[in-house]
Amino acid sequence: MMTPSEVGKVSVVQSENRTLNFSEIFAASCRIRDHVVRTPLLESPVLNERLGGRILVKPEMLQKTGSFKFRGACNRILQLTLGERRGGVVAWSSGNHALAISAVCALLDIPAHIIMPESAPQMKIEGARRYGAKVRLYDRATENREEIGAQIADSEGAVIVPPYDDFNVMAGQGTVGLEIMEQCRELGIMPDNVLSSASGGGLVAGIATAVRTCRPETSIYSVEPAGFDDLARSLASGHRVENAGGMNTLCDSLMVPTPGALTFPTNHALLADGLVVNDAEIRVGMANCFEHFKLVAEPGGAAPLAAILSGKLDVREKVTVAVLSGGNVDPSVYSSIL
Amino acid sequence: MMTPSEVGKVSVVQSENRTLNFSEIFAASCRIRDHVVRTPLLESPVLNERLGGRILVKPEMLQKTGSFKFRGACNRILQLTLGERRGGVVAWSSGNHALAISAVCALLDIPAHIIMPESAPQMKIEGARRYGAKVRLYDRATENREEIGAQIADSEGAVIVPPYDDFNVMAGQGTVGLEIMEQCRELGIMPDNVLSSASGGGLVAGIATAVRTCRPETSIYSVEPAGFDDLARSLASGHRVENAGGMNTLCDSLMVPTPGALTFPTNHALLADGLVVNDAEIRVGMANCFEHFKLVAEPGGAAPLAAILSGKLDVREKVTVAVLSGGNVDPSVYSSIL
Repeated sequence: MMTPSEVGKVSVVQSENRTLNFSEIFAASCRIRDHVVRTPLLESPVLNERLGGRILVKPEMLQKTGSFKFRGACNRILQLTLGERRGGVVAWSSGNHALAISAVCALLDIPAHIIMPESAPQMKIEGARRYGAKVRLYDRATENREEIGAQIADSEGAVIVPPYDDFNVMAGQGTVGLEIMEQCRELGIMPDNVLSSASGGGLVAGIATAVRTCRPETSIYSVEPAGFDDLARSLASGHRVENAGGMNTLCDSLMVPTPGALTFPTNHALLADGLVVNDAEIRVGMANCFEHFKLVAEPGGAAPLAAILSGKLDVREKVTVAVLSGGNVDPSVYSSIL
Repeated sequence: MMTPSEVGKVSVVQSENRTLNFSEIFAASCRIRDHVVRTPLLESPVLNERLGGRILVKPEMLQKTGSFKFRGACNRILQLTLGERRGGVVAWSSGNHALAISAVCALLDIPAHIIMPESAPQMKIEGARRYGAKVRLYDRATENREEIGAQIADSEGAVIVPPYDDFNVMAGQGTVGLEIMEQCRELGIMPDNVLSSASGGGLVAGIATAVRTCRPETSIYSVEPAGFDDLARSLASGHRVENAGGMNTLCDSLMVPTPGALTFPTNHALLADGLVVNDAEIRVGMANCFEHFKLVAEPGGAAPLAAILSGKLDVREKVTVAVLSGGNVDPSVYSSIL
């Protein structure tokens, strides 16, 4: 017999041979709606005038835990069976995914195990602990976080929730795209372009699926920092390529070596192109979030606005939506950028 | 015969002998809804845990032009007759009211005349000009802004829109309170306390009218900076008193000498008390807006959160809404406070 939480549960096929479906995003939206913030769609007449087009921002720094990651974590964890809830969740991350998993688990009273590098900012380690997560620190040089994760999953009976290579996580992030379409409809407009930052590619894959199912003419662009443009190059070559390594960026949240195995087929099928911005452009993006929108953007969160402001895309006489993915930035770093 | 914009127009009695009505706020809400941002109601589980109560913020820095002032300006200017529109609007302000008037006039293609002190920050003068307003600078020592305003009103046939002593302006600001009640209902909660900063008192009068009409048990508090606590002392004494003068504050937007003649009867009838915060407490409020909400608050905008964090009100086991009135702050000032 099925337990109550298993009734109506559809098994999700996690496979590299398929793309994300719109129905998964719509189901996620129904599932998580009481838990997430429906972030507004904002615009600045002054910025619109300057750019000669209509720019709307979707500020996911206003989401719980300060980033869109709460949506995907929420969608996955709400689908745990009663038995799985007892064992809890394991995740590895030094940033926004860790905070999101910790907060969702706190909300649902589920144990959370977070594996973080010893070198992670103290602020972020404390952040996860504040939500009651058990933080397991590891040494990047001598230990492997996937192995530690597998051990905890095994010994505690915990479920691993990956940051992007999971269709439930992608579907949760895709609710950003669904809200964009609903909010554009309320405003009586339709987006010509939607820009989102990309790390593993879960957010942009979810947004592309939601937006282009509703309106196939809309162009979706990923935005990555210079030196970490693995998705842009993978889109160009048609298969997943790695970053060269040895590079640095202000965008601590956008530093994965290669696109996700499960996110790439969707992004390859749906994205128009991958845009790339450098640190100087990111700084301008952050300062413009401050000036025109009164929003605190972390470096990676400002990447789409940075791409627009630096002319990477022609937005004149178009409606362009820039998703601002998060705002978790240290005050001293922020001050130095302003 | 009535012109189209006069049909259904109800003449508004501007008098010290009455209080604001709920119906005026509801009408304002219908009138301005296509033009204003319905700012979200946000909360932080971490902050709630720390304070032992539920704190929700209403971030009016996300409103157009970066403050709530856009609402009142919009409600007043939308009611100009076709003849009045041709003559335009006159207003005096060195800050948020000037930006709001300029932006509403730009939206409706109406001439705007803004009278600002020569000593106003260049950024704010430029801000009004960007929206196409004609800025008339005056010398605070030798000229009187009301006289200049009356001259322009006379020569141009322009309508004066005051920053708070006008029932249409108050009603527009009151839509903040109406949205708070709607959003609380959506969340399945009701506010025990609502805090708003006060300068002339139009915002808090509007909020108090909206909230206490819907729920008379809710306590409404004004928050002012130390040295500019004219409303708190006026509430205590039962009549309008002036500030001593010679004081300074970080809160450039909250520096009026005495409560408004038309706002005070409403505030006297409806407010529970007036709270006062000092500059150090304001800084903590601004830093907490950054940390927990990723919002840029100007000093005056952070005053209600500052009052809560400094223990001016017992919020334990209560639902408390803090209205954050604006976010127009110079980046260098902001950096120094973080």
